Amino acid sequence: RFTFVATRSFSMNKGEFHVSAVAVPQTTDAPMPTKAAGVIRKNAEELYRATQRAVCKGLEECDGEAKFRADSWDRPGGGGGVSCVLTDGKVFEKAGVNVSVVHGSMSPLALRQASPAMAQRLDGLQVADKLPFFATGISSVIHPWNPHAPTMHFNYRYFELCSEDGSPLLWWFGGGQDLTPSYLYKEDAVHFHQTLKDACDKHDPQYYPRFKKWADEYFNIAHRQETRGIGGIFFDDLNDREPEKILAFQQSCAEQICNAYVPIINRRKELPHTEEEKQWQQLRRGRYVEFNLVYDRGTQFGLRTSGRTESILMSLPLTARWEYDHHPAAGSREEELLKACQHPVDW
Amino acid sequence: RFTFVATRSFSMNKGEFHVSAVAVPQTTDAPMPTKAAGVIRKNAEELYRATQRAVCKGLEECDGEAKFRADSWDRPGGGGGVSCVLTDGKVFEKAGVNVSVVHGSMSPLALRQASPAMAQRLDGLQVADKLPFFATGISSVIHPWNPHAPTMHFNYRYFELCSEDGSPLLWWFGGGQDLTPSYLYKEDAVHFHQTLKDACDKHDPQYYPRFKKWADEYFNIAHRQETRGIGGIFFDDLNDREPEKILAFQQSCAEQICNAYVPIINRRKELPHTEEEKQWQQLRRGRYVEFNLVYDRGTQFGLRTSGRTESILMSLPLTARWEYDHHPAAGSREEELLKACQHPVDW
Repeated sequence: RFTFVATRSFSMNKGEFHVSAVAVPQTTDAPMPTKAAGVIRKNAEELYRATQRAVCKGLEECDGEAKFRADSWDRPGGGGGVSCVLTDGKVFEKAGVNVSVVHGSMSPLALRQASPAMAQRLDGLQVADKLPFFATGISSVIHPWNPHAPTMHFNYRYFELCSEDGSPLLWWFGGGQDLTPSYLYKEDAVHFHQTLKDACDKHDPQYYPRFKKWADEYFNIAHRQETRGIGGIFFDDLNDREPEKILAFQQSCAEQICNAYVPIINRRKELPHTEEEKQWQQLRRGRYVEFNLVYDRGTQFGLRTSGRTESILMSLPLTARWEYDHHPAAGSREEELLKACQHPVDW
Repeated sequence: RFTFVATRSFSMNKGEFHVSAVAVPQTTDAPMPTKAAGVIRKNAEELYRATQRAVCKGLEECDGEAKFRADSWDRPGGGGGVSCVLTDGKVFEKAGVNVSVVHGSMSPLALRQASPAMAQRLDGLQVADKLPFFATGISSVIHPWNPHAPTMHFNYRYFELCSEDGSPLLWWFGGGQDLTPSYLYKEDAVHFHQTLKDACDKHDPQYYPRFKKWADEYFNIAHRQETRGIGGIFFDDLNDREPEKILAFQQSCAEQICNAYVPIINRRKELPHTEEEKQWQQLRRGRYVEFNLVYDRGTQFGLRTSGRTESILMSLPLTARWEYDHHPAAGSREEELLKACQHPVDW
């Protein structure tokens, strides 16, 4: 077993990213050092690119006004990506959907910094100083304006490390999807979790309970002793069956992204709200920033390995707030949400 | 040489912090396992407590309306602190001044997590599984409302690790003070740095140039390739002369905190400003949050070792903002500030 988070775009070397605005996301033609794994790489990349198009389209329809702007960028060490960002919409304050397809060579030291567990796995093997790697993934965070409409995040990814001759040494899939409301609506939580469960159940009845628990553990703000929201699913290091089967599982999840989220937003996007509710949302956004900058492995790894900063930090909300020693009033709806974050619920 | 950041309050064990509102900061009567070092501990603590009172008084006078609220808290493992917070003032949006005096026992593993360099130093010694430690420090961040008025941070601290019999194994001082404007005023930068230089020069002509450079390196947001502001001084692991002499140096710095800052605030606090200038300040506040949550060693260490979260995150601004791929206009005052952060200046 090993752990490694290959989310988002990253680079092992310092360097400039070259960004150009493009109308339509384009496929990066990455070299494929391994013949055997080539099909999985290609299929994973295609799934993520198709998902990016579908989610952007679904969110634009839900917003009704704003359009995504697509930035295509190259990674100096190899590969690149497309970052799609919608800002200042009618419904969405800020939404980003990023796809990256990167490859290059990685030193065991870089692996050690990224994942001690993975480096440990390599300790038993005779490997070169630098090993070819390939990583592709899709990552997204969507922040609506209305404090009654929740933030959603999803991320699906595939990683491969090869030996010098190009044969695969290690490969695995990772991913997750979680909902972060400022106010609790039980029907929203049930709908979100049920949609994820249905997608999981098609592939393995153990997936949802296992990945739901993993999400409650992963999306945890340890120094607050609270989760960042009401969870969802999270998995990593997944290579327990043929890669085609895991990719098919990711596809089932990816196809349900808009179904899991858009009906909730449609119910909440026009609800009236007070200035106090907006401020509570801003405080919860502050917690979101704390999780992403302090704990999120993809963010930490990306920032510390010269990833494209703007694509990594797309996940941050437009605005956030911190008040010293804030506590919601007893019995308030704010306290209700906080309690659900302090004691994860089986929805 | 070893490194260890003992800033702010922290705890080696999970546990609840007990907080009570008090009118006047009180002295924690911490046990003193070493006779020899006892005087330095006591004098350091007294310096930090006196500095807290003086800075709070100076800032209240500058604000003209708001008062600091003092929270006294106990650390379950030993010791405690006093957090003074001013919010929603006339001049200051949010200001916090925290003093902590903590002691207890620390495992080499905890040391290793906090500082590989320090753990390395212990590798050569025969030491027990848990060693007594003592740490005291003052830490502060001050955020004014006006986008033309800069944020200031300072932190001074003393740390001791003892062997089982109570004799000191290691001791050192650390500290720093830096200015983070949203708009560059050369006279402010010169005044701030000159005041720090004068305080340093009383003790060692090498201190200011060395600690100024160290601040430019430390207060660096690596993933942005920019510093968080226009620097100041930073030092750590300082034990190159008698502790009395280093404490006297810290005292000279501490006595100049208000002199370095308040004249700048008085010049800027009532300047007219536009909505665009306020938004630029909010973007710079976002960068401040990035530095503190991703890089600041005291924050990272405190959060990961169950420090008192509200005291640690007092440093965050009331509000912050993130826009995707924002670039200030060529030749603008916003770009002028950014350039000073990209290429540190000798003021």
